[in-house]
Amino acid sequence: MNKVKVAVNGYGVIGKRVADAVQLQDDMELAGTCDVISDWRIKIALRKGYPVYAFDSNSQQQMIDNKIEIKGILTDLIKVADIIVDCTPKKVAAQNIEQYKKAGLKFIVQGGEKHETTGHSFSAENNYETALGLNATRVVSCNTTSIVRTLTALKKAGLLNKARGTLLRRASDPWESHINGIINTLVPEKDIPSHQGPDAQTVDPELDVITVAVKVPETLSHLHYWNIQLTKKATNEEVLEAFGTSGRTAFINYSDGLTANNTVKELMLALNRPYGDMYEVAIWHDMVKVVNDELFYAYIVDNQAIVIPETIDAIRALTQIEMSAENSMRKTNRSLGITQGRFI
Amino acid sequence: MNKVKVAVNGYGVIGKRVADAVQLQDDMELAGTCDVISDWRIKIALRKGYPVYAFDSNSQQQMIDNKIEIKGILTDLIKVADIIVDCTPKKVAAQNIEQYKKAGLKFIVQGGEKHETTGHSFSAENNYETALGLNATRVVSCNTTSIVRTLTALKKAGLLNKARGTLLRRASDPWESHINGIINTLVPEKDIPSHQGPDAQTVDPELDVITVAVKVPETLSHLHYWNIQLTKKATNEEVLEAFGTSGRTAFINYSDGLTANNTVKELMLALNRPYGDMYEVAIWHDMVKVVNDELFYAYIVDNQAIVIPETIDAIRALTQIEMSAENSMRKTNRSLGITQGRFI
Amino acid sequence: MNKVKVAVNGYGVIGKRVADAVQLQDDMELAGTCDVISDWRIKIALRKGYPVYAFDSNSQQQMIDNKIEIKGILTDLIKVADIIVDCTPKKVAAQNIEQYKKAGLKFIVQGGEKHETTGHSFSAENNYETALGLNATRVVSCNTTSIVRTLTALKKAGLLNKARGTLLRRASDPWESHINGIINTLVPEKDIPSHQGPDAQTVDPELDVITVAVKVPETLSHLHYWNIQLTKKATNEEVLEAFGTSGRTAFINYSDGLTANNTVKELMLALNRPYGDMYEVAIWHDMVKVVNDELFYAYIVDNQAIVIPETIDAIRALTQIEMSAENSMRKTNRSLGITQGRFI
Amino acid sequence: MNKVKVAVNGYGVIGKRVADAVQLQDDMELAGTCDVISDWRIKIALRKGYPVYAFDSNSQQQMIDNKIEIKGILTDLIKVADIIVDCTPKKVAAQNIEQYKKAGLKFIVQGGEKHETTGHSFSAENNYETALGLNATRVVSCNTTSIVRTLTALKKAGLLNKARGTLLRRASDPWESHINGIINTLVPEKDIPSHQGPDAQTVDPELDVITVAVKVPETLSHLHYWNIQLTKKATNEEVLEAFGTSGRTAFINYSDGLTANNTVKELMLALNRPYGDMYEVAIWHDMVKVVNDELFYAYIVDNQAIVIPETIDAIRALTQIEMSAENSMRKTNRSLGITQGRFI
Repeated sequence: MNKVKVAVNGYGVIGKRVADAVQLQDDMELAGTCDVISDWRIKIALRKGYPVYAFDSNSQQQMIDNKIEIKGILTDLIKVADIIVDCTPKKVAAQNIEQYKKAGLKFIVQGGEKHETTGHSFSAENNYETALGLNATRVVSCNTTSIVRTLTALKKAGLLNKARGTLLRRASDPWESHINGIINTLVPEKDIPSHQGPDAQTVDPELDVITVAVKVPETLSHLHYWNIQLTKKATNEEVLEAFGTSGRTAFINYSDGLTANNTVKELMLALNRPYGDMYEVAIWHDMVKVVNDELFYAYIVDNQAIVIPETIDAIRALTQIEMSAENSMRKTNRSLGITQGRFI
Repeated sequence: MNKVKVAVNGYGVIGKRVADAVQLQDDMELAGTCDVISDWRIKIALRKGYPVYAFDSNSQQQMIDNKIEIKGILTDLIKVADIIVDCTPKKVAAQNIEQYKKAGLKFIVQGGEKHETTGHSFSAENNYETALGLNATRVVSCNTTSIVRTLTALKKAGLLNKARGTLLRRASDPWESHINGIINTLVPEKDIPSHQGPDAQTVDPELDVITVAVKVPETLSHLHYWNIQLTKKATNEEVLEAFGTSGRTAFINYSDGLTANNTVKELMLALNRPYGDMYEVAIWHDMVKVVNDELFYAYIVDNQAIVIPETIDAIRALTQIEMSAENSMRKTNRSLGITQGRFI
Repeated sequence: MNKVKVAVNGYGVIGKRVADAVQLQDDMELAGTCDVISDWRIKIALRKGYPVYAFDSNSQQQMIDNKIEIKGILTDLIKVADIIVDCTPKKVAAQNIEQYKKAGLKFIVQGGEKHETTGHSFSAENNYETALGLNATRVVSCNTTSIVRTLTALKKAGLLNKARGTLLRRASDPWESHINGIINTLVPEKDIPSHQGPDAQTVDPELDVITVAVKVPETLSHLHYWNIQLTKKATNEEVLEAFGTSGRTAFINYSDGLTANNTVKELMLALNRPYGDMYEVAIWHDMVKVVNDELFYAYIVDNQAIVIPETIDAIRALTQIEMSAENSMRKTNRSLGITQGRFI
Repeated sequence: MNKVKVAVNGYGVIGKRVADAVQLQDDMELAGTCDVISDWRIKIALRKGYPVYAFDSNSQQQMIDNKIEIKGILTDLIKVADIIVDCTPKKVAAQNIEQYKKAGLKFIVQGGEKHETTGHSFSAENNYETALGLNATRVVSCNTTSIVRTLTALKKAGLLNKARGTLLRRASDPWESHINGIINTLVPEKDIPSHQGPDAQTVDPELDVITVAVKVPETLSHLHYWNIQLTKKATNEEVLEAFGTSGRTAFINYSDGLTANNTVKELMLALNRPYGDMYEVAIWHDMVKVVNDELFYAYIVDNQAIVIPETIDAIRALTQIEMSAENSMRKTNRSLGITQGRFI
C-alpha cells in the first residue's frame, strides 16, 4: 500500500506534534513541514530530518540568510502532498485555504477556525464516519474535543440530559510564556455562554451543553468542572463505566498523589511521553460524584496534545485509507501509547 | 450611651481589619488587640495607638525582648472587654473559646471554625435578628458570606430554585505569599460537593446549593461562577434588580475595562479603600445571563475584606446595641464606605 | 504667592499619582489631566474632581459617547497651565514635546524618553540646582532614580569607587497584569551592560556603574543586588551611615519579618500609603555586608511610586518657585509622608 | 567485567534520575531503589522494572497495603549493593550514613548535606582524581556544580581572578509546586554572602567567589548572573574559548529565539531529553561581554538534572571502575546525550 503523503503547514505547538505523530504511522509519511520562522524552532525540524519549506518568498529569504536548508516554499510542498494539515495561526489559516482548494488538495484545519471554513467538524469517537472521503474537515479545539469525548460517552450510556461546564484555561503555552502571559490574576471571558458549548454542537447538534470560561495564570493544561443533569438517578459506578468506554479518556486518582495539574504533567514525563504530552482526557476517578440525578466531575485537558490523535484519525477519514473508525483509532492509540483505564 | 468595648484576639489578615473597623464605629471602642507575634505586624498596631496584649506568657516574654510595649496578656484583655472577636488561626480559636466561656464573655469566631462551636452562624442580610442577645456567633467564611448574600437576594425575589457554583480560590493572602503558595498549577479540592455549600446552609437551611472548589495561583481575590435553576423563566433585568436589593453587592462592568481580578483591585485602591479592600460582592453586570429558566453569573470576592462589615454587625446583634438589622447595616456601610449599585 | 498650575498629560500609572501628589502641595494646583481612555480609569479622575481633558478629537468623541465630562482637549489644557508633566507612553511623549515647545510651555518627561529630548536628566538629591529655570527636564526612570540616590549617598561619603548591579524587574504593573505578563519563566535583557547604568550617568557622569537586568514574574516592585568596589576598607556602620544621609532611602529589617517584596508591600498598605506606594528606596539594613573593600546590599524599588517625589521637585526647579533643593525636598517629603530612617 | 551494583536510596527528583542514568551505563546495574512513598511516584519505578525496597518497616507496611511489590527494606538493599547513592531529604541522609558506614558500603550524598559528612566534595571536571577509591563523597549542589564548572574553565585558561555571582533560584520543583511555592514576590536569602560561594571552595579552595541568592516564582531552572574580575584585559572570544573547553557547558543564542528559561526548557523537550532535562550549563553565547578586564555573563542551570552526570562519574571514581576522569566523563556524556558547543 502506498503511504499517504502528509504536509504540515505551521511548525508550532500543534504542527510539530502532528509531524512527529505522522512519522509514527505505518500508513503515512511526512511530505514536509512549512513555516515562516528561522530560529531554533525550525532547526529542530531539520535536526529530525524533516523536509522544511518556507511559507513564502519573504520567509524563504530569511531562512536562506539564516542558513536553514529548505526544499522550497509552500506552493512546492502542496505539489508533493496528498493532504495538508494547517496548523498556522487563526487568521493565516483562513487565507491558506483558498490555496489548498485551488490546488485540489484535501486539508484539515484546527479548532481556531470556524466550522464554516470546512463545513465539517471532527471528533473521532463521535463522527469519524461522516468525514470519510470529504475534501476538508476541522479538528475541533482542545476544550471542545474533551467536551465531545466525555459527553459522547455519557450519551452512549443513555445518561446525558444536559451539561454545564466551567472551563479554567491555561493562559499561555510554555514555549511562549515569556511574551504572552498574565500575572496574579484571573481573566473571565465576557461572553456567557462561552463559545465552547456551541462549538461542541458543530460535532453533535444533539448535545445540550453550556460553558463558561476563565483564563488562569498557568501554562500546563486546562481544568474542567462539569455539572450534568442525568436522565435518571444513577450510581458513581455507572458513570465511571460510561467514561471507561471512551478509548481516549483515562483515570487518575487524587488519593494516589495526583492532586493537581503539575503532578499529572510530571506523571506524563515519567511515562516518557514526548514533551510530557497527554492525549487523553484525565478524569479524577475518586472525585466523580453523583447526587441524585446530578453528576459532578473534574478533568484535565492537555491543550497541546489532545488534538494530535484526532488529527491523525482525520487524515485517515479524509483519505479513506481506513474506513473503520475503530481501526483507525486503534492504530493511532497504539502508535502514540494512548492509555485507556488508569495511567498508573 | 456607653460604647461597647471590643477586644480583638489575633492581629492577622482579619483581626487587623476588624480593629480598624471597630475604630470607625461611634458605638464601639477598641479594648485591645492580642497576638503572639513580635515583628513588624504588631508594631503597626502600636503605631496606630491600639492597646496591645500578648497572647500568653511565652509571647509576652518575646514581646518584651523585642521592646513591644504591651498592656498585659489575653486574660487581662478579657477583663476589660464587653465582647471579643476571635481572629486566631483555626485550631487556636477552638481552644480560646473555653476561656471566653469561663469568663462569661460574649464572643465571635470566624468562618474557619465549625458551626457547632457557637451553634449560630451569622450573615447580616439573612439572619441578623436571630443573633440578637446571643452569647456567641460565627461569622461565616468569605466564600460562604458571598454565597449567602447573593442567593438571599435571589431568594427574596422569589427566583431561586437551586444553585450550583464553581469557586476559584486565591491560593495565598498577599502578606504571606512568600511562604505559602503554589506555582504554575491548579489544585482542586478533592471533595465534591466542597464544604462551602453545606456551610451556607448553616445560615439558611432552605438553600439548595452545591459547590466545587479549586485553588488558583493568585493572591488577590476569589472568583465564583454560578449556574442557577430559577423558579421560572426570567429576564436579565429581573435578576439584576434582585441583586440590586442587597446592600453589600455592587456591580462592575466588563465593558468598562474591569475585566479581571487585578483591575478590580486597582479600582479599590484608586477609591482610596484601606488595603484596597472590597467589602462588597462585585458582580459583573454585563456578564449576567439568563437562558430560559437558567441563570449564569460571575463575581469577585475579596476574601480579606468581605467578612469585616459582617463582624461589625454581629457585634451589634450580640450586644444588642442595635436591635434593627437595617440600622446596623446602614451604620456599618456608611462607616466603611460600602457601595451599593455601581462602584464607578 | 500664586500657585503653579500643573497639567498632567497621561492619566496612567505615573500620571494619576503625579496628579494626586500635585494636589497635596501648597504651592501647586492641578490645571487638569488629559488622556485617551474612556473607561473606569478616567472616571476616577472625574470622581476626584480633577479637570479632565481629551487628548485629541478622536478621544474627545469617545469620551462624549461614554458620558465623560471634559473641559476640552490637550491644546486647551496647554493654555491654562504653567508647566506640563508628560506621563504618556514612550513614543507618544516624543511627539507631544513639539506641541509643548511651540506653546512655550515648560515640560517634564518621564524616564522612558531619551536624555536628548530635554538635554537634562533630573534626580533631586543629585542635581536639583542644575535644573533651576530650565524649560524642560527628564525625571529618570524608577530603576535609575534608585541607582542615583543610593550611589550618590555612597559618593558623598567618599566610599564609592565602582558599582555593579543586578536588577530584577517586575514583569508587569498590577493594573495591566491581565494583558501583559509572563508565566513561570525569567527573561534576561539581551544587552550587557543594560541601559540603566549609562542612564544613571546622564544625571551624574562621574558614576562608574554597570548593570544587568532580568524580568521576573511578579508585579509588586523591582529588587536590586549591588556589589560595590569601595575606595577603601570600611565597616557596615560607615555604609549604613552613608545611606542614612539620603532623605529618600529608608531601612527595612529582614529580622523584622520583612523578608520579601510582598511583605514590604503589605507594610506600605498598613501604613495607609495610597495604593500602598513606597517613594523610598527600601534597603535591607541587616543584609548590608562589607567584605574588605567590597560592599554588598539589596533593596526594593516601587517602580510605580519612586519617581513621584522627584517629579514634584522637578516642577519646583523648573518653575523656580523654590530655589533650594533642600527646601523643595523637605516640602515634598512632608506632603507625601516620606520616611527617613526606619519605616517601622 | 562485573558491573557495579548501584543502590539508590530516595526515589525523588534526583533519585529517579540517577536510577535511570545508572541503567544507561554499560559498567553499572541498578541494585534497587528505596523510598517511603506509596503513591504514583514509586509505581513508576515498578513500571520501569526497577527493584523496589521500602525504607523501613513502617513504609513497608504501607507499601504492602497499597499493593506495591517490594523486594525488602533498606537493610536488604544494602546487602546486594556495591555502592549506594543517597538522594533522601536533607536530615534523613545524615542519619542513613551511619547505616552505610556500619555495613562498610561506599556511598555518595547530595549537595544538601555538609562537606563534613564525607570529607570530600566532588565535581568531575575539577577533582575526579582526588575521589578515586574513597569510601564516600558528596556531589555538590546544582548551583555549586554550575559555579565550579564555569569557573574551572576560566581558571584553566588563566583568566580568573575573582568571581561575584547573583543567583536567581527557582522557588519549587515542578512535581511539588502545588504544595510548595511562592506567588507574586521575590525572596532574598538573608545571608550575604550566600552559602554557594563557600560551597564551591569545598571543591576548589583556590576559587575567590562570593554569591548572593534570591528565590523567584518559577519552577523551571536557576538563572545566574556573573561579574568576573579577570587577570587581564581579554576579548569575548578568549572567554568563549575558555568556556568551550568544558565538556558539560553548552551555548545558547539569544538571537536564536532562546531568550528565556521557558524557551530553553522547550528546546530540551524538543531534543527528546527525558523530562526535558538539561545536564549542561547553558551559557548565552551572545550575551557574554568583556569590559576591559571585567567579564559579564549569564547562564541557566537545570537544578533537577545537572548533578546526574556528576553522580555517575562519582560512582566510577569511588569504585575505581574507571581511573581516568576523561574516560568516565566521555562514557557518561555519551550515554546521556550531553552536548558540547551549541545545542542547536
